Amino acid sequence: MRIAILAHEQFPDRAKTAVGVLRYGDQEVVAVLDRDSAGTTVGDHLPDVDADDVPVVEGVEDAPAFDALVIGIAPIGGGFDESWRSDVRGAIEQGADVVSGLHYFLENDAEFRNLADEHGVELRDVRKPPDDLTVADGVARDLDCEIVLTVGTDCSTGKMTTTLELVEAAREAGLDAGFVPTGQTGIVIAGWGVPIDRTISDFTNGAVERMLVERADEHDYLFVEGQGSIFHPAYSAVTCGILHGAMPDHLVLCHEAGREAIHGYESFSIPDPGRVADRYLDLAENVAPAELLGGALNTYELDDDEADAAIEAYEESIGVPAVDPVRDGAEELIEQL
Amino acid sequence: MRIAILAHEQFPDRAKTAVGVLRYGDQEVVAVLDRDSAGTTVGDHLPDVDADDVPVVEGVEDAPAFDALVIGIAPIGGGFDESWRSDVRGAIEQGADVVSGLHYFLENDAEFRNLADEHGVELRDVRKPPDDLTVADGVARDLDCEIVLTVGTDCSTGKMTTTLELVEAAREAGLDAGFVPTGQTGIVIAGWGVPIDRTISDFTNGAVERMLVERADEHDYLFVEGQGSIFHPAYSAVTCGILHGAMPDHLVLCHEAGREAIHGYESFSIPDPGRVADRYLDLAENVAPAELLGGALNTYELDDDEADAAIEAYEESIGVPAVDPVRDGAEELIEQL
Repeated sequence: MRIAILAHEQFPDRAKTAVGVLRYGDQEVVAVLDRDSAGTTVGDHLPDVDADDVPVVEGVEDAPAFDALVIGIAPIGGGFDESWRSDVRGAIEQGADVVSGLHYFLENDAEFRNLADEHGVELRDVRKPPDDLTVADGVARDLDCEIVLTVGTDCSTGKMTTTLELVEAAREAGLDAGFVPTGQTGIVIAGWGVPIDRTISDFTNGAVERMLVERADEHDYLFVEGQGSIFHPAYSAVTCGILHGAMPDHLVLCHEAGREAIHGYESFSIPDPGRVADRYLDLAENVAPAELLGGALNTYELDDDEADAAIEAYEESIGVPAVDPVRDGAEELIEQL
Repeated sequence: MRIAILAHEQFPDRAKTAVGVLRYGDQEVVAVLDRDSAGTTVGDHLPDVDADDVPVVEGVEDAPAFDALVIGIAPIGGGFDESWRSDVRGAIEQGADVVSGLHYFLENDAEFRNLADEHGVELRDVRKPPDDLTVADGVARDLDCEIVLTVGTDCSTGKMTTTLELVEAAREAGLDAGFVPTGQTGIVIAGWGVPIDRTISDFTNGAVERMLVERADEHDYLFVEGQGSIFHPAYSAVTCGILHGAMPDHLVLCHEAGREAIHGYESFSIPDPGRVADRYLDLAENVAPAELLGGALNTYELDDDEADAAIEAYEESIGVPAVDPVRDGAEELIEQL
């Protein structure tokens, strides 16, 4: 499938979905739309992605032919920016589907709905959970498959990236590994999945469990993308539901070097990572005991020497091996399995 | 407001909502509908409720005049039993509102919707959360009000009843106390509230916080009804969201004497209550530290001597005073405040 990715004014640093699809997706990316960087290539911005010949363009009319337009940015609040309307309209008129992880549902937008019907294309709002979710049966631990879950000291500590790097490293090591996405970016990348943060709280554990039950027969290892943090004042319900719905055998704790407080909730400090890990293990214990496989440290802001020192300190705190999966890959963690 | 309560074939033992409204509601109950016990009175079944003259009747046509019909039973799954249809129809035709905590929304039932429009009455589906919920700001701890939350070792351990008994005891002790309901029964009893188990998981903490922000100015003490258990394989997301959204100063741990496994999930054992309490305190600590005020033990299945012994053992396990609030009231816990 050929896709174009919309990332106006935010590519690449504030375009998490766009970069995730470029780095880990199976789709063929033909262009990135960013009016601020038109004329460059993706390779200019992301040297580690094999995309030197993928152009950054002003709008859909400048992109090579594609089958789907992916909304590659997720602004705070998840709203739709009206400056994107002409590109979405243009994509539909070219006969392309539109894939969006926004809270704002494209299929509830009358103009897009009518235009999509007229051109016979699909509007895929991946943030809309299935409407037949139900309560968990408590069976994930009985599945014939080892389950690894990424958990975090906060939001945006690299859980999705770490999970995808773990899958990549597991496959390179010859393991039969599958990725279980739980957020809109992961779902866009994987092409399937339930947006756990949009499920009804009574069914949150059950929605995670259902994804695992569906995929357990296909793989020996499933790597589940975690969300939020068990100590996050706003999102802990989501985190707890994933932990108990997934019943992971192994946890990987994700942290950002130097972060000392919950992002956007600065009066809430983050405890020592070793203590956070213990709390996750405690919370898992009475439902389905887990062990800490390793740590993933986001050292994006540090130089190499600082990063090495930060990883060493992090390993000391949590008592298991740690890596920065973006710098180093996740092989070292897979070796622990 | 005069109400009739529908509880066919389940009054009183399996009619939690009906009994809750009878015991704690401010409404005037004119009749209970139960075709299995027609001809008796409420007092025959519930000697502790002042309702000797409230008849149990076969159907709405036999009930004295009322302003609203309350669906007083909540079957597993929350479905609508077709044998209730004639009573709901009859109530609407008499000009009465209908209040329901079912998962099945009456206002989506075409017959009821049309009939309600025709007769100008309201269908109140209390299990439908407001559609403008959002993420928590993390401010409950800053409110000028002490917050007490009931938590449990499992579902159905008496959290709602304990919370209502705490409010009653606090008021009798001269404290300015308010009740914050989080489930359909509590909402029917209180006449307001958000059904937390039906909120989108991203907004679960926020929905609890919003109720507290709304009520904090009106009371010195707010008693929040808890849900589920932090170790429940299916409902832990709801429990965690309430704990971190409410940021309680004090917890009261509710347990049923003799229960050793999660109800309906018998392969999941319940740890020693003292350990459960510690885990709740641990989980609260890094968001907003709480202390354990006391315990509430459901001793319904025991005789007086057994109940006394069970409460003593429970106190020993959790290290703070405990009561069976249905037998003894909750004064002893309020004294701890």
